[in-house]
Formats: sequence, C-alpha cells, structure tokens
Amino acid sequence: MDPAAAGEIDRAALPAGTQLAIGPEALDELVKSPEIDRVVAAIVGAAGLRSTWAALEAGKTVALANKETLVMAGPLVMRLAEQTGGKIVPVDSEHSAIHQALRAGSASEVSRIVLTASGGPFRLRPIETLVSVTPAEALQHPTWSMGPKITIDSATMMNKSLELIEARWLFDVPAEKLGVLVHPQSIVHSMVEFIDGSVMAQLSPPDMRLPIQYALGYPQRIAGPARRFDFSKNTSLEFEPPDPRRFPALRLGYEAAARGGTSGCVLNAANEEAVRGFLAGELRFTDIVEVCARVLSEHPFQADPSLDDIRRIDAWARQEVVSWACV
Amino acid sequence: MDPAAAGEIDRAALPAGTQLAIGPEALDELVKSPEIDRVVAAIVGAAGLRSTWAALEAGKTVALANKETLVMAGPLVMRLAEQTGGKIVPVDSEHSAIHQALRAGSASEVSRIVLTASGGPFRLRPIETLVSVTPAEALQHPTWSMGPKITIDSATMMNKSLELIEARWLFDVPAEKLGVLVHPQSIVHSMVEFIDGSVMAQLSPPDMRLPIQYALGYPQRIAGPARRFDFSKNTSLEFEPPDPRRFPALRLGYEAAARGGTSGCVLNAANEEAVRGFLAGELRFTDIVEVCARVLSEHPFQADPSLDDIRRIDAWARQEVVSWACV
Repeated sequence: MDPAAAGEIDRAALPAGTQLAIGPEALDELVKSPEIDRVVAAIVGAAGLRSTWAALEAGKTVALANKETLVMAGPLVMRLAEQTGGKIVPVDSEHSAIHQALRAGSASEVSRIVLTASGGPFRLRPIETLVSVTPAEALQHPTWSMGPKITIDSATMMNKSLELIEARWLFDVPAEKLGVLVHPQSIVHSMVEFIDGSVMAQLSPPDMRLPIQYALGYPQRIAGPARRFDFSKNTSLEFEPPDPRRFPALRLGYEAAARGGTSGCVLNAANEEAVRGFLAGELRFTDIVEVCARVLSEHPFQADPSLDDIRRIDAWARQEVVSWACV
Repeated sequence: MDPAAAGEIDRAALPAGTQLAIGPEALDELVKSPEIDRVVAAIVGAAGLRSTWAALEAGKTVALANKETLVMAGPLVMRLAEQTGGKIVPVDSEHSAIHQALRAGSASEVSRIVLTASGGPFRLRPIETLVSVTPAEALQHPTWSMGPKITIDSATMMNKSLELIEARWLFDVPAEKLGVLVHPQSIVHSMVEFIDGSVMAQLSPPDMRLPIQYALGYPQRIAGPARRFDFSKNTSLEFEPPDPRRFPALRLGYEAAARGGTSGCVLNAANEEAVRGFLAGELRFTDIVEVCARVLSEHPFQADPSLDDIRRIDAWARQEVVSWACV
C-alpha cells in the first residue's frame, strides 16, 4: 500500500513509483487528482489549511492530522465539505476516540463530549512555580512523545483548548456540550455521553499508529501494529476535573468555541507565536496564556469571516504577540 | 407509556387498561398478539425460556432480561430468531454495554469481548476462608442490590460464567474471544476490542434503569432517569484479571461456552440447585462450584439438543445436585 504520490518529503525515503510534489500549488494539484480518494493532511500549523481546503473542494476524504484547519476556519471548512461531499476523518487521538464513540448513537442523541487530557508535565507542580518553568521542563511530556510546539501546548493545556474548538466544528456540537477531564494515563482518549446517560469511551495505549490507521481505513477497521491494551495486567484509570487556576488556557478554548468567527484563528495564531517566544526565551511560561487572553479579548471580532479575513487576522494576532513580548 | 398487557404481576400495581394474563399458555398467546411489537422477558430462571421462545417465534423484538434463555438454549434460540426475524436486545448491563460498543465496528472486526465483574463481596477475602462463607455474608453485594440467587452468583462469579455463555450465543463470538476483568467500581459495564486494537467501553453508574431503557428504546436512545456519570468528581477505575483460584466458576463458564450443546443448560441447572442448597444450609459456599464442575463433567453431553432434550437434561442436572448434597 505505498502512496501513489507524496508532498514535501525526504526523497530518499520515497518508495519507488511514488510521485514527489513540491510547493503549495503542486500540492493543490496533487490532492485534486481524480485517481486520489483519500488525502492525509499532516502539514503542521496554519500552513496546513490550504491543501486541506483543496482536497475538500475536490470532494475527497481527508484524514486530518492538522488541527489548525478546523481551529482557524471550522465553519468555512465544514460548509465546504457539505457542499462538495468531502469528508473529514480525524487523526488526533481525542477526535478519533470521539468519532468512534459517536457510532453508538445518532448525532441528536449526544448530550456531552468529554475530551481527556494527560495533564502534561505540570499536573502536580505547585501552581505558584509555573511562572518559572523552563523550556526544557515543559518539553518533558509524561505519556506522549511529540514535537516541541504540541508538547508545550500540552503543558499549558492550550492543545486541549484547540481541540475543543476543533471538536465544536468537526462534530457540530455547541461549546456548552463540550468538557475536559484530566486523565494522566492517556488510555481513555475521549468519551461521549448520550442523552440516556450512557457514556462510550475509546481506550488504547498511547500510540498514534491507531488513530492514523483508523482515519486511513474508516469505515473499515484494519488489523495493525498499534500497541494493545493489556488485559492481563492490573490497570488503574484516574480522572479528575481540570483546575482552572492551573490551566487557564482552557477558558480561552471554551470562549473561542462558543464565540466562533475569528476567535479560533486568533487564539491559534497568538499561541503559535507565544510558544515560539517562550522557546526562544522571550516569554515566561505563564505569559503564553496571558498574551493569548489579551490578544483574544482585544481582537476585532468578525462573526462570519472569509478565508482572506482569516489570513489577515492571523497575521495581525501574531504581530500583536511580538509587540507585547517586546514591551 | 403504560403497557397494554402484563403477565404475572400484582393486580393492584397494574395501570388502568392494562390486561392481565396468568399462566404459561396465556403468556404464549399474549406475546404473539399482532398489536405487540416488543416483549420484555424478565421472568426469572429456567421458566423464562418458554414465553421468550413464543415471542421470537412470532418475530417480535425481545428485551431480554432472562439469562437462562440463552444459557440453556442459545443456539436454538438464535436460530429461531434468524428464521422469524425476531430480535434480541439484552437488558443485562454487561450485554447492553457490549451491544452498544459493537456499534463502533462490524461483527467481523471484533477481536475480543471483555465482560467486567465487580468481584463481589469476597474479592479481597483470604481464599482459604471461602469455605466458611455464610449465606448472610454472600448476600452482601458491594455495588448492586439484587435478588438472592443472582447475588450469590455474583459472589461465586458464576453469574459471569453464565454471562460468558450468553455472550457467546447472543453475539456469535467463539469462547476464545471472550474474557473477564474484575472492576470493583462497576462503572465500566463491559468492553469490546476490535482488530485494530481499539477498545470501546460503556460507562455509567450502576443503575439498571439505563440498560432496561436502552433495550426498550433501541435503536433510539431516550432521555431517562438513570444516574449519570459525575464528570465533576475525581474518579478512579480499577481493573484486574480474575484469580482462577478465587473464582473457579469462571473455568466452567469458558468450558460451557466453548463446548456448547447441553453444557450451558447443565451448568445453569446445577448452579440453580446448588445455590438453593447453599441458602438452605445444605451446601458450603465452595461446594456450589464443586458440585457444578462434577455434574458438568459427568453429564451425558449432546452437541445439538432439542428443546425437549434440554428440558430433560435440566431436570437430570438438578437431581444430580440434590443426590450429591444428600451424600
């Protein structure tokens, strides 16, 4: 099952016969080719929106690993998919879990979607010491091995805020039906509560191969190499509501999910820039959320922005963080 | 939503306009009436088979609370349902959980079904003292309030053995794909592992109103009075593999699920009689499983028994236990 074509990749790693496409225009062309039915969208950050958009425009099924697409432009992207018949199957472990749990009922029967969060490296650290967290400390994640940006997002729990926004659009649920539970073991990847009180949860050891494979195979499930839940061992799964003083980022996620419009884009852009600033030693750990809150509350909100509006407000938000950090 | 008719019930408790039917023949007639689409089969013990059979024969959907129907005659009952288009929706909390979890994949994608067990009142009691357990001790269940027979079955874990057999037929899975996990909190009611390694679990506080309601409403879910999982509290869910020395009943369940034929009926009948003997002070607690093992291994096995064969072997097994207890 070698891919027929791949965009932006190490040439030496390509299987023979796989076409290499370089640059945004080439990617747009690629994802629209008639012989392609499923596109894996895994470009990191805001840059991932363009080719995901192109794939959905062409009515493809997109295995979506890029959070920003829905965080920045959820309503536009979902409207596009509805018009073209394009489909999104999430690759994020949380959204994959929700996607699976939702199969046990109909959309109108959902009463609550609860995303789980590992709590990151600072779940138990005294709150008053968070201000002095170093990049090296924040880059140590207890259960997942990931890139620096998302590891920092996991430490601030801004990743969960972005996932709340993503879930709000992907599953078309209002913000008040979304929740977060801290679950240090990262085995339950999320839960869905239905109107009868039944809660469906998806469990598996932390291993991204499972949600990736699920998104590639859906609606079929395929036997694969992902680590298995070990039923022969004693297991303890703990859940606790997140402390809003420890994780102030969550409030911003709920706010952006509830308000919609340009809020998700602004929060995402401000956070990307703030994390860059923190890793570069320009901002303190606790500044990340503070600057995001400031930029979010001060931004010129638009309820129904175009893609161009979104690009503009994205650039504006980044610039605001840079200015704030320089003061 | 008052029932149009009810069988064997306290007259004073009947809503006005609900018809009362008394005796097995009246029940048979009742469940076959054309105006009835769904039958709740909740008669306790082996006596429940007859009217469940009649309902399935008439192609009805049966909300099945009676374990014995499938334990005694699983293959016959499932074959009948297939022929008539009758359907079974389980009421047992474990099988309801499995029924819900199975919706997240297709039947051919199931790799394992794991029933959870509370572990009953003797999960931590020194094994060598089990021989001296009194009926009063065995009737104290930590999480569920139930009748005496099923409470004793929960203490020996014979209930889980009967549920293994039930699951084997209801979901058409071979015994080697079935498992049991002890879960003292009784919040995860069972789990299904799919071939990709994804495990779907159903959670809710112990409250039979949920699975009963699910069986009444399926395929719709209905808002109802069942207790809700409290996401605002800290929760810890523990799982441990059952100790075969503490719960020797489990081996009998796996054996009967694997062997099929008359095994389930014999195990169920022997156990009913042994539990009666234990509650009457004629048998020790540990005798229950011992006598069941003996009767199961010595019975004249038939691979494809008729309903008449099953009735005969049922009576034989009960008599064997009585004889054994008198020695």
